Amino acid sequence: MSYASIDAVDAAKRPRIAIEAVRPSVDGGRFPVKTIAGRPITVEADIFADGHEVLRAEILWRGPNGGDWKRAAMAEVVNDRWTGTFTPDEIGRQEFLVEAWWDDFGTFRRDLTKKRDAGFDVALETDEGIEMLEEFSAKAEPKLARALADAALRTRPLDVAGRVAELLSSDAAQAAKAGDPRHHAARTEPFPLEVERTKAEFASWYELFPRSESGDPARHGTFRDVIKRLPMIRDMGFDVLYFPPISPIGSSNRKGPNNTLTPGPNDPGSPYAIGSEAGGHDALHPELGSLEDFKALVDAAAEHGLELAIDFAIQCSPDHPWLKEHPGWFKWRPDGSMKYAENPPKKYQDIVNVDFYGPDAVPGLWAALRDVVLFWAEQGVKIYRVDNPHTKPFPFWEWMIAEVKAKHPDAMFLSEAFTRPKVMYRLAKVGYGQSYTYFTWRNHKKELEDYLIELTTTAPKDFFRPNFFVNTPDINPFFLQTSGRPGFLIRAALATTLSGLWGMYNGFEICESAPLPGKEEYLDSEKYEIRIRNWNQPGNIIQEITRLNRIRKENPALQTHLGVKFYNCFDDNIIYYGKARTAPDGTPIDMVLCFVALDPHSERTAGYEVPLWEFGLPDTGTVEVEDLMRGNSFTLTGKSHSIYINPHELPFHVWRLKPAGAVA
Amino acid sequence: MSYASIDAVDAAKRPRIAIEAVRPSVDGGRFPVKTIAGRPITVEADIFADGHEVLRAEILWRGPNGGDWKRAAMAEVVNDRWTGTFTPDEIGRQEFLVEAWWDDFGTFRRDLTKKRDAGFDVALETDEGIEMLEEFSAKAEPKLARALADAALRTRPLDVAGRVAELLSSDAAQAAKAGDPRHHAARTEPFPLEVERTKAEFASWYELFPRSESGDPARHGTFRDVIKRLPMIRDMGFDVLYFPPISPIGSSNRKGPNNTLTPGPNDPGSPYAIGSEAGGHDALHPELGSLEDFKALVDAAAEHGLELAIDFAIQCSPDHPWLKEHPGWFKWRPDGSMKYAENPPKKYQDIVNVDFYGPDAVPGLWAALRDVVLFWAEQGVKIYRVDNPHTKPFPFWEWMIAEVKAKHPDAMFLSEAFTRPKVMYRLAKVGYGQSYTYFTWRNHKKELEDYLIELTTTAPKDFFRPNFFVNTPDINPFFLQTSGRPGFLIRAALATTLSGLWGMYNGFEICESAPLPGKEEYLDSEKYEIRIRNWNQPGNIIQEITRLNRIRKENPALQTHLGVKFYNCFDDNIIYYGKARTAPDGTPIDMVLCFVALDPHSERTAGYEVPLWEFGLPDTGTVEVEDLMRGNSFTLTGKSHSIYINPHELPFHVWRLKPAGAVA
Repeated sequence: MSYASIDAVDAAKRPRIAIEAVRPSVDGGRFPVKTIAGRPITVEADIFADGHEVLRAEILWRGPNGGDWKRAAMAEVVNDRWTGTFTPDEIGRQEFLVEAWWDDFGTFRRDLTKKRDAGFDVALETDEGIEMLEEFSAKAEPKLARALADAALRTRPLDVAGRVAELLSSDAAQAAKAGDPRHHAARTEPFPLEVERTKAEFASWYELFPRSESGDPARHGTFRDVIKRLPMIRDMGFDVLYFPPISPIGSSNRKGPNNTLTPGPNDPGSPYAIGSEAGGHDALHPELGSLEDFKALVDAAAEHGLELAIDFAIQCSPDHPWLKEHPGWFKWRPDGSMKYAENPPKKYQDIVNVDFYGPDAVPGLWAALRDVVLFWAEQGVKIYRVDNPHTKPFPFWEWMIAEVKAKHPDAMFLSEAFTRPKVMYRLAKVGYGQSYTYFTWRNHKKELEDYLIELTTTAPKDFFRPNFFVNTPDINPFFLQTSGRPGFLIRAALATTLSGLWGMYNGFEICESAPLPGKEEYLDSEKYEIRIRNWNQPGNIIQEITRLNRIRKENPALQTHLGVKFYNCFDDNIIYYGKARTAPDGTPIDMVLCFVALDPHSERTAGYEVPLWEFGLPDTGTVEVEDLMRGNSFTLTGKSHSIYINPHELPFHVWRLKPAGAVA
Repeated sequence: MSYASIDAVDAAKRPRIAIEAVRPSVDGGRFPVKTIAGRPITVEADIFADGHEVLRAEILWRGPNGGDWKRAAMAEVVNDRWTGTFTPDEIGRQEFLVEAWWDDFGTFRRDLTKKRDAGFDVALETDEGIEMLEEFSAKAEPKLARALADAALRTRPLDVAGRVAELLSSDAAQAAKAGDPRHHAARTEPFPLEVERTKAEFASWYELFPRSESGDPARHGTFRDVIKRLPMIRDMGFDVLYFPPISPIGSSNRKGPNNTLTPGPNDPGSPYAIGSEAGGHDALHPELGSLEDFKALVDAAAEHGLELAIDFAIQCSPDHPWLKEHPGWFKWRPDGSMKYAENPPKKYQDIVNVDFYGPDAVPGLWAALRDVVLFWAEQGVKIYRVDNPHTKPFPFWEWMIAEVKAKHPDAMFLSEAFTRPKVMYRLAKVGYGQSYTYFTWRNHKKELEDYLIELTTTAPKDFFRPNFFVNTPDINPFFLQTSGRPGFLIRAALATTLSGLWGMYNGFEICESAPLPGKEEYLDSEKYEIRIRNWNQPGNIIQEITRLNRIRKENPALQTHLGVKFYNCFDDNIIYYGKARTAPDGTPIDMVLCFVALDPHSERTAGYEVPLWEFGLPDTGTVEVEDLMRGNSFTLTGKSHSIYINPHELPFHVWRLKPAGAVA
């Protein structure tokens, strides 16, 4: 790269005002910042110029269909850092930028004031001010031009003192502000912004296998059976109902119970082995019901306030129609056999992976996969949990998700990638609105705090939304295998209060935890067999889950992972944190405060600090507290108190605090 | 911004491998990283892909004239972070980028090893490996193709065990590495790199007014007079000799002594009022001598190891020829008068500023200013100290400096901007290789440490080089006004050991500090009058300055501001820091360690820690110490010791440490 040889004429067209370090932004604007429709977003930037001129700046933004820019003023906070706020109200891809310019009349007024105050003769300065108004007028739109010309006309006949008064009047300032030709205006590149619906950040997911819903171990469950379960799931407070794949299951190399290779004739196989003579990704497994049944379920769920989420798992069973129709979408071995999925030395004999860069894969396979998602979107399903996206190309996701969202801006994608942090973050950057996380394996106070601090205060806060699943069909956490019922309550409390998005796979509410010995997997996994359960069995935690979901609905501070702060509780086995609800000006109104014992076995008493300072209260201040789990109320005076937790009763407290005497 | 509507074919061409967070970089590559020719530069990046393939990566770089890329291998350090190192050896604008690709054969070898170790039948895998070598061969250059084809030929006839051994041999690996077609290769954009000569980071500046060099208050000094001073300046260890403006001084509104408006007939005026009937920026003030005299001085200075630096001050006196020749380069007032420089309520009646965006200014003025610098470059002067660059447009500097460096890559620009931090940093980004700093006003331990930590460990480390001036004709620091001789020694020690670049304005070596009362300015400032001094007067600190400059020359660790570390000395008035010299592999060889008392008045004794850990020594380890100011040597055993400083003797210690028994 040699020195750019441009001539001075072009150089002089470059922006004189520097606009740097625009936030929020993801990789300098390469990827969109994510937000929720209706939520104010504060944009910051370093804005400065050479010289001493007064500057002004605005945020410009526009919605998914382009068109005219809307504008919001920015103001300097400190040390050339400026901020402004706007509220996107439409979902879809939007963009914003920052514009700054010389406030010529503002500079004039500042300098005129200084010189007048220093006792200078400012007669000539008033001439300059009047000329400036006239110049602005010559360039302004007719209506603004009139106001500017009037201001100049009004001022010209006066004596110097009168002119100064007129030029410093708010009328002149207002006319000049409206008609300012914005000399030296500079703009940043546009920064993309992905605006999604509330459910992208606040939702409670419930996962079940429809085939297990018949109530009879001898009968394969159906979509119609699921309809009967809807009231119970709704009553627990869930609003997303998620199914593992519901497409036809292959029979070649079908897996038997507990992932064995010797299935019996009635074993249903893993639903992740997608495709049979009954069809592929856009077909339904015949035993679950017809497309009509499925649509009936979608509608019934909606009536219960539940939105359906389906699984998008790209792999194929060896019986998938695509293998014959499109051999060029797959990898073949030198002997002409199919290359099975593998992660050496592991092999997945019941599935084969597509080859995204295979001889006929572009554009055929890419378009076919997109069309699968579009097909389900047209059936009314807009939420997709994507299986192992980290083993498929980033450019595919970026393209496919954009294609789907262009037609269905309300589409939402959950990334099921349990892999290295940078890969997980990249998937969020290229389009995933939410992601599975390491939460499932974070059990200690320090590691939970560190992880939440990373998610809520470092770069990922602008593009990565965690969905805290407490378990999945693949993950039977070691912690829950030995914790007993208190452990399930601990994990439910953490997930529901730390993240706006949380999820559970059925069985959690009845504290299921029998493992494959030594593994973090379920014994008799529902992935390979039909499981019938008694939801009302003793020791279930349905009531507590219901209460936690209700607390979430009633407390906006809990409807996002953002904003969590950790406080001092002097016990390494009690994690203690709060989330404040704030007024538009940032003042906290009230705060949800949580104490969660991380040890499911022992009673504990520990000192802690009431975060009085968050309300601007002194260390002797008083707050009113509602215990949201138990329903009672009390007041606390002073900063230092102690807390008692008995995990066998309830291993956590959830409180709502407000300053004593404040109106709710 | 709606979703990019591109088809799958284009989407599939996008890079599959992510390369993120490349360092060093300035504003994502918008501005160049600065470095010194011959210094290794380590590039880091997050490099990862979807899937489980083995990756490889290289840094590619090329010099100022483009051409073929040179390459250096990168390796993963931890958690998808990769690094590699290269050494630019030419000065001028260069560029580097990062390339990464799928290491197909590396992936094959890894998986083959895993499967073989797991006892799998790998016959088919060996076929695949041979096919891969053949495919590589078909795409490679003839010489590489031959090696690859040979490796395949060698392998094919063997039994499975023999094939595995051959495919895992280093011969096969090497052939595959050389002939790898680099599937899914991805490249970053190029990042610019400004490579300068050593003096851009390590130099000692001495500033004087040539007109004060006659030795006789009644006679105006000349360039020939300055020649006589060169040995003394050289002997003190300086290598840059810098003059305030030497162009003709205007007579209109000339300033008298102490910035008065009533000069006598013999008052020389401020050299910053540039331009008279004798000429403008490309002329010499007649009383200083001719262009021939000046060239004689340039040559004589070079013979003494001194490089000349001149002042580039863009303002004009009212007598500058440009005012008549190019009225469209200036601002005029409504009454037809010239607009003088001002910073309300201050006025600078002896200078007027050009208007960079005036009616005829583009390109005329811009080119004329560039040509002034080019004119002096052609006279052999390549270092420019630029007066108040923060009041001139950023785009002008970016263009002008690039134009000059395109012809004179050894040109160096020092920014004299004392303004807000972001403005100072922006000037460095647009082209200034070094900058005046806040050092002059940092006297306390915490503020010095904080400032150095900002300069050496945060973003500016990649583009901003501080030049620590201890005083200037404009700045007579309050600290020195009351510190006496010890204060001058304190500031000299800090400047010479903290920064590779330092500077002093003459008078400092004889501890001049008489102020304009209450101001941080010199009484009887040399800006407005000729000053003759006795350099050998008692109490001068010439010997100490000489010694410090020699220590800098002998210790590479002191030849940059980078690499400073602060250590524990348990006295808020003793700042204590070290800079290590390291072997190419990063191991410290030795270390310069400095204790500087910040209180010029009192003796002190304080505990401190010997940084044994920097050499990998235990807390009981022994180091050998040379006292570089006093010349004696001793050893220290153990981590905790105490230090005594008497500011009236010498307010600092400079030591060189190495582990006991190590070879220097």
